[in-house]
Amino acid sequence: MTADTAQSLARLAAERVDHRFKGLPPDADGLTVAELAGQRRNLFTGGFATPVLALSAERLEHNLKLMETYAARHGLTFAPHGKTSMAPQLFQRQIEHGAWGITLAVPHQVRVARAFGIRRVFLANELVDAAALRWIAAELDADPDFELICYVDSVRGVELMDAALRDAGASRPVDVVVELAAGEGARTGARTEAECAAVADAVAGTRTLRLVGVAGYEGEVPKADSERVTAWLRRLVALAAGFDEAGRFAGLDTIVVSAGGSAWFDAVAEVFAEIPELSLPALKLLRSGAYVSHDDGHYRKLTPFNRVPEEGALEPAFRLWTQVVSRPSAEQAFINAGKRDAAYDLDLPFAQVIRRDGAERPATGVTVTAMSDQHAWLATTPEADLEVGDWVGFGLSHPCTSFDKWQLIPVAEADGTVVDYVRTFF
Amino acid sequence: MTADTAQSLARLAAERVDHRFKGLPPDADGLTVAELAGQRRNLFTGGFATPVLALSAERLEHNLKLMETYAARHGLTFAPHGKTSMAPQLFQRQIEHGAWGITLAVPHQVRVARAFGIRRVFLANELVDAAALRWIAAELDADPDFELICYVDSVRGVELMDAALRDAGASRPVDVVVELAAGEGARTGARTEAECAAVADAVAGTRTLRLVGVAGYEGEVPKADSERVTAWLRRLVALAAGFDEAGRFAGLDTIVVSAGGSAWFDAVAEVFAEIPELSLPALKLLRSGAYVSHDDGHYRKLTPFNRVPEEGALEPAFRLWTQVVSRPSAEQAFINAGKRDAAYDLDLPFAQVIRRDGAERPATGVTVTAMSDQHAWLATTPEADLEVGDWVGFGLSHPCTSFDKWQLIPVAEADGTVVDYVRTFF
Repeated sequence: MTADTAQSLARLAAERVDHRFKGLPPDADGLTVAELAGQRRNLFTGGFATPVLALSAERLEHNLKLMETYAARHGLTFAPHGKTSMAPQLFQRQIEHGAWGITLAVPHQVRVARAFGIRRVFLANELVDAAALRWIAAELDADPDFELICYVDSVRGVELMDAALRDAGASRPVDVVVELAAGEGARTGARTEAECAAVADAVAGTRTLRLVGVAGYEGEVPKADSERVTAWLRRLVALAAGFDEAGRFAGLDTIVVSAGGSAWFDAVAEVFAEIPELSLPALKLLRSGAYVSHDDGHYRKLTPFNRVPEEGALEPAFRLWTQVVSRPSAEQAFINAGKRDAAYDLDLPFAQVIRRDGAERPATGVTVTAMSDQHAWLATTPEADLEVGDWVGFGLSHPCTSFDKWQLIPVAEADGTVVDYVRTFF
Repeated sequence: MTADTAQSLARLAAERVDHRFKGLPPDADGLTVAELAGQRRNLFTGGFATPVLALSAERLEHNLKLMETYAARHGLTFAPHGKTSMAPQLFQRQIEHGAWGITLAVPHQVRVARAFGIRRVFLANELVDAAALRWIAAELDADPDFELICYVDSVRGVELMDAALRDAGASRPVDVVVELAAGEGARTGARTEAECAAVADAVAGTRTLRLVGVAGYEGEVPKADSERVTAWLRRLVALAAGFDEAGRFAGLDTIVVSAGGSAWFDAVAEVFAEIPELSLPALKLLRSGAYVSHDDGHYRKLTPFNRVPEEGALEPAFRLWTQVVSRPSAEQAFINAGKRDAAYDLDLPFAQVIRRDGAERPATGVTVTAMSDQHAWLATTPEADLEVGDWVGFGLSHPCTSFDKWQLIPVAEADGTVVDYVRTFF
């Protein structure tokens, strides 16, 4: 851990618990986060208020280890996407688990990472904001150890970056990779190899930017299946090889080739294993981020480990604890958590367990049918034994929109002992 | 303003601007919020980074005044729903504009309000969480000026509240109102008058709770139209009159009758004007919250002012400023704001204006078609003159899920001068 990271994480541990952090025990007000963690309170009996989102300590550690092993086994450099958690404590654990650096999506996220001493950032997005580029230029100039790589996908984007960086008087060039779009109608990225070459030419024409490779996001391949994703990844590799052959990477130490969200990293591993010999070593950068908490919905279905079970399995690490506040009919119940507390963009939360008087059992016959801002609507079948006051634990779908609803998240061991608190910055 | 409120708002003004607050100028790092506000920077030229959500100073003030006037004209006591903004600075302005107190949805929100010296809280929800009730009991005991009213809708809920408050050694009773559900299949609330009476009986059987009225939320009336909403409001009023006749409010100063979200306050005003003479004065409590920012979508369509234009019109006060980062084809563009930055639950954002080189024009031919976590997908027609680097300003739908994505929101005058920053707590 760098001294900067240690110092900033220590500041987080010294923060006072107060009204800013929902779900935490009201009687912990005024304690520091470290003091509260030191008390090892129990999530169910330690005065926590509902709703409260908890991370499983064991599952988090399992997931961190599994992707470390996976990346190492496949010769991939790992820069997990930090937008998922925006939690510097998790960034640090990812780095301790072998990550090369952290991937991020927008400059605000880079500011958070830099405030916590992260040295290597892969900004998997175009960046043409003059104010942000001015800040990045200053950050690069102030710290020779800071490495940043960002996307470019248009000649105009390159011109705007160059103008902003020249205005800012940047002394170190910003490293860029050309983004190849995942197909027609897909998201960002130049759509054709010819456009990619034009963008690379534009980069070569500046003194403020340096081309270091190619990248893209196979998660947006239209009608994605293994075949289409693999075909696109091969286009990306061929683009790198073509650029290399054209001498575009002369003078570098490595050539960056990056892809890999959370749904197709098996295909990325396979295709990146076939990267032909280039004039320089390839830095095969995988960016998956959702693995850290995994989930009980979208990524449970999409995880590549379903196709390669012999390589392991991620474990959903989130559980949202809520309380039944109303049971107005035999078919309906309402809990005190809503859109402000749970992801609802890909799936509604999944009722998993009910706790009453310290005993836990499956939430049989309980389904979320809708979300209000501060309530979820539950439909209950005759089998459902559910009453006002029961705690209901939910699995969630989509880590990114789960983390971003909580600023300080208890990390609990299997018996409910809360051993840590994870701070997020959104 | 109370001394507590003044002191806590002064602490907000003294907070340091840093990586916690997205969109703010990176070069403002280390300034206090008050210092930054004192610089009166311009939103477009003052170093703000995109995406950034801005509130209109003039429209905010207009909306605050309009609802103050509206409530006064109709003899309604106003407790605007604070869950919308969760911004203590706005709570204070609402109180300065005549509000009786602040409505909230969950105990965490009450903690925020209390940290900012709010004296009167209407908790428009059931509350059976023992940890939260223990805190509330302590708060009531510590401050004789603190008034809290909360919902009850089940006998079991009353029993749980009573047990928790007795355990906590509460000395002041918690004031409660019986919630009448808005109909079969609606949200929380006892479904029938008989059930409401049973709940009121249960309250009367405790020493920890005191029945002070009735309440409900007409926004959940199934297949709501003026007729159905009015019919339900009349049921609510009749419930209050029946309880009064039965002597359930003996010994009080007023009888609380509360309803009113942001879609039917005209019906509430009309029906509450007809409340028959009770044994005590009625406190006719309106709870609308979305008016403070209003919006360009859901509430623009639903606002009662569409039916009573002679009483005024709310003005949408939010604009989300984003930047085009990619323009991969003539039909598509991508901006650097996504699900983390804009409400997307009721409608997608509405492209309103494009800024380039300091000039602003309508965003003709630009439509949001989808949201990723950190991007929005724009479809563009041949008329759309849009390129990488352009700033695009969006209107939003749903104030509650707009406020909650921003922790420090610039308040800008029409010419872009940022005169204040509003802090939120979610």
